[in-house]
Amino acid sequence: MPLDQAPIQGYDPRTGEPAGEPVPATPAKQVNRTVLAAQTAFAAWRAFDRAAALEAIAAALDEHADELVALADRETALGVPRLTGEVARTTGQLRLFAGVLRDGLYQGTLIEHADGPRPDLRRVNRPLGPVAVFAASNFPFAFSVAGGDTASALAAGCPVIVKAHEAHPRTSLRTAELVKAALAEVGAPEGVFDLVFGFEAGVRLVQHPGITGVGFTGSTRGGLALAKLCAERPDPIPFYGELGSVNPVFVLPGALAERGAEIATGYAGSLTMGSGQFCTNPGIMFVPEDAGLLDAIADAVSGTVGAPMLAERIHSGLVAGLEELAAIPGVRLVAEGKPGEGPWAPTPAVYAVSAEDFRANAERLREEHFGPVGLIVTYVPGTGTEPSHLLRQGSVGEGHLTSTIHLDADNAADVAAARELLPELERIAGRIVFNGWPTGVAVTHAQHHGGPFPATTAPAHTSVGAAAIRRWFVPVVYQDAPAELLPAVLRDESAFQSG
Amino acid sequence: MPLDQAPIQGYDPRTGEPAGEPVPATPAKQVNRTVLAAQTAFAAWRAFDRAAALEAIAAALDEHADELVALADRETALGVPRLTGEVARTTGQLRLFAGVLRDGLYQGTLIEHADGPRPDLRRVNRPLGPVAVFAASNFPFAFSVAGGDTASALAAGCPVIVKAHEAHPRTSLRTAELVKAALAEVGAPEGVFDLVFGFEAGVRLVQHPGITGVGFTGSTRGGLALAKLCAERPDPIPFYGELGSVNPVFVLPGALAERGAEIATGYAGSLTMGSGQFCTNPGIMFVPEDAGLLDAIADAVSGTVGAPMLAERIHSGLVAGLEELAAIPGVRLVAEGKPGEGPWAPTPAVYAVSAEDFRANAERLREEHFGPVGLIVTYVPGTGTEPSHLLRQGSVGEGHLTSTIHLDADNAADVAAARELLPELERIAGRIVFNGWPTGVAVTHAQHHGGPFPATTAPAHTSVGAAAIRRWFVPVVYQDAPAELLPAVLRDESAFQSG
Repeated sequence: MPLDQAPIQGYDPRTGEPAGEPVPATPAKQVNRTVLAAQTAFAAWRAFDRAAALEAIAAALDEHADELVALADRETALGVPRLTGEVARTTGQLRLFAGVLRDGLYQGTLIEHADGPRPDLRRVNRPLGPVAVFAASNFPFAFSVAGGDTASALAAGCPVIVKAHEAHPRTSLRTAELVKAALAEVGAPEGVFDLVFGFEAGVRLVQHPGITGVGFTGSTRGGLALAKLCAERPDPIPFYGELGSVNPVFVLPGALAERGAEIATGYAGSLTMGSGQFCTNPGIMFVPEDAGLLDAIADAVSGTVGAPMLAERIHSGLVAGLEELAAIPGVRLVAEGKPGEGPWAPTPAVYAVSAEDFRANAERLREEHFGPVGLIVTYVPGTGTEPSHLLRQGSVGEGHLTSTIHLDADNAADVAAARELLPELERIAGRIVFNGWPTGVAVTHAQHHGGPFPATTAPAHTSVGAAAIRRWFVPVVYQDAPAELLPAVLRDESAFQSG
Repeated sequence: MPLDQAPIQGYDPRTGEPAGEPVPATPAKQVNRTVLAAQTAFAAWRAFDRAAALEAIAAALDEHADELVALADRETALGVPRLTGEVARTTGQLRLFAGVLRDGLYQGTLIEHADGPRPDLRRVNRPLGPVAVFAASNFPFAFSVAGGDTASALAAGCPVIVKAHEAHPRTSLRTAELVKAALAEVGAPEGVFDLVFGFEAGVRLVQHPGITGVGFTGSTRGGLALAKLCAERPDPIPFYGELGSVNPVFVLPGALAERGAEIATGYAGSLTMGSGQFCTNPGIMFVPEDAGLLDAIADAVSGTVGAPMLAERIHSGLVAGLEELAAIPGVRLVAEGKPGEGPWAPTPAVYAVSAEDFRANAERLREEHFGPVGLIVTYVPGTGTEPSHLLRQGSVGEGHLTSTIHLDADNAADVAAARELLPELERIAGRIVFNGWPTGVAVTHAQHHGGPFPATTAPAHTSVGAAAIRRWFVPVVYQDAPAELLPAVLRDESAFQSG
């Protein structure tokens, strides 16, 4: 059996030992059947009460939260409190999209009555069709089987086939069982949701003529490979990838003077939370040169403990990356935390480099290190190495999910500096955080979780929040249609008209 | 000098002789300077009164309409009435986007105040940055230098560099002069708009690190090549291509009985208008087998005259394609029009094939023939060759800008058949026309001019109408920003709040 079709074995990150029975990789024929079933279900799913179905899924997951959390904790070691919160976030997302469907906003209806030579035109969004969703390693619920991509695509009217992440197969399998049972319970069409396992199954999905779009959360390398497969199809399809981001943080002098200690502890917390396995982890922080701040950061970081990472591969990737980082000229270790327990627990670490040295090796220094590891870039105000200079020179890179400014809003110099930074920050990141930390992404209507490549491959779109549903729609316009042939929302008497 | 950098020589399609002086290809260094100037202009253009600037451009083009039409008629032979209308459409588009800016709708602002643990989040669209626009051959104004792509991108706040189409260099050059003068007159930042010539210049634009997005209207082959260049950049950028479409038309039995003669003449008019050089040309029409209808179509088509095509290459491509079409088993000539004058004028022609034969060679038969040439597919109701069957079997292809139904709205069988067709038509085309013809695309707020690949490469987007501006935006969300650092439209007192 080729390696790519080997059973998917989960592991306990606390011990590195197998956790639970392996799950078989999905054979090619079964992937095909799954897509065919999704295609067959498409028409009925478009017409279904999808809000009720999403709520039924949410209720089922909530009801089995303890069981799911226990499964996931064994496979991810993310801990019961975090995982309990993540299940709640996941069911909250499902309910958010139920609300989105009920308020009708994202249908994008626009009705223009005929006017002189202009025909009657009525536009509405329609779902793409069956889509593939690639689950992430670092959120076994919220960006996984029943996570945001699945919830938004199901809401849009697209049948969904999830490719499970190999880091948590049993959690994935059980979640899928619950989703399927909940859908069956409310009478949803069979085949509207399914789960496949294994690398080959994922490739087959992306290349299958019946798949009309792909959502992906993961590494830049993996994402680019799938994006290429999508682009090289005889009929290229949209690929919505959320890939890498180092989330630069800029500390301005006034903020340092006002609350340096608070910034140091906040930074250490954000950096090491979840063993640093967040796409919004603050990988690089630019601070005014200040021995006191570095001491405070060293203090805060040395008190942290490395938690087990999700997979051996993630841990070894981090270790290899850090060796390269530490060897770059000018980079010095500021502080380390305590190594965690088990074979895959890293030692949290913070490195520092001067702004001059950063600029000289910016491309290598801004590589993402997925884990509890940060780089601090020290600048001396007035020397041409301030953040605004580095940004304009391109040293900070162009594609991030977030960027963060710490400023003293009562300090005129900070405000002026922030004003100078903002046009640059808008250019490089989809979310600009003020006086906070990038980890923690609110799931709301206004949220935008995206950014220029490599943060995402489609920067106009978000993978978090209500607007995530837009990825799964394309518009269709009816010209001079007889009323009885119009979709209900496009009839004159529709309650949903937005224009 | 390599061929790709040869001067761009326009030709008179009525004679095939050179028209006017050639225009030099833009050297690489000048392309670089152009992009640098666009980058420099970006910040000032975002802050500029862009609605006034668009209106100034529109006024300048209107003022010089006669001169522009004369230039374009010499290079395109599209005729004074059509070209006069096209200038008006072009200036109408510019004014439409001025209105879009004034009503603020497309800024996509959404303000969520802080609520418990949820931060204050305020989302707004920002322009991508400098973009490249590739002008089309078949609309020397409306899809060219100052056409819809340029108008929508300038409106969004993106500096624009147009790559001129080689079929109308003098028209392009003069239009660009007028645009630049109008922008200078209103004090717009220098470099916010420019024009380059030549294949190499176009490639360099798409690969230039300063370019953040590309708009293209043209052939599937050319579009795919540029899409590949965009995808293979170190930082892939969005590519909005409008490529090929054969725009299937479905005539239902009731419509045939009710107004067969009218359908025949309407079809011949839509097919041969502008020498068939429209992306919405009705390339394939499915009709119930009926000798009377074919006779009527033959009558109508034999009265048409082929107008000169835009370029030698387009004419020879059509001739070669027709030889292949006529050689496919079961294809027969129904009627020909009269050959037009000059070396590049084709003979309008209509071919027919049975639905069975169509199904057997569907992939070859649905290739686009850019010109006044149509294929009629005859089906026999009740034999399993009706349009709904062909659509479900995939024979009609998946990517069209439009699809059209002719039905008798008072005929219950027609209405039932249309109901069966609609889900399939929504799947394959972005606009569904009832009892009309696909040529003629209204430029309005509700319009959607797009479709699955190959109709467009980004099917969620339109290149015609107000929503075309969305292609040039990405969202940015401000989290917990001090009020004074928020963009004006995101402050509490803004008039533009949409949520």
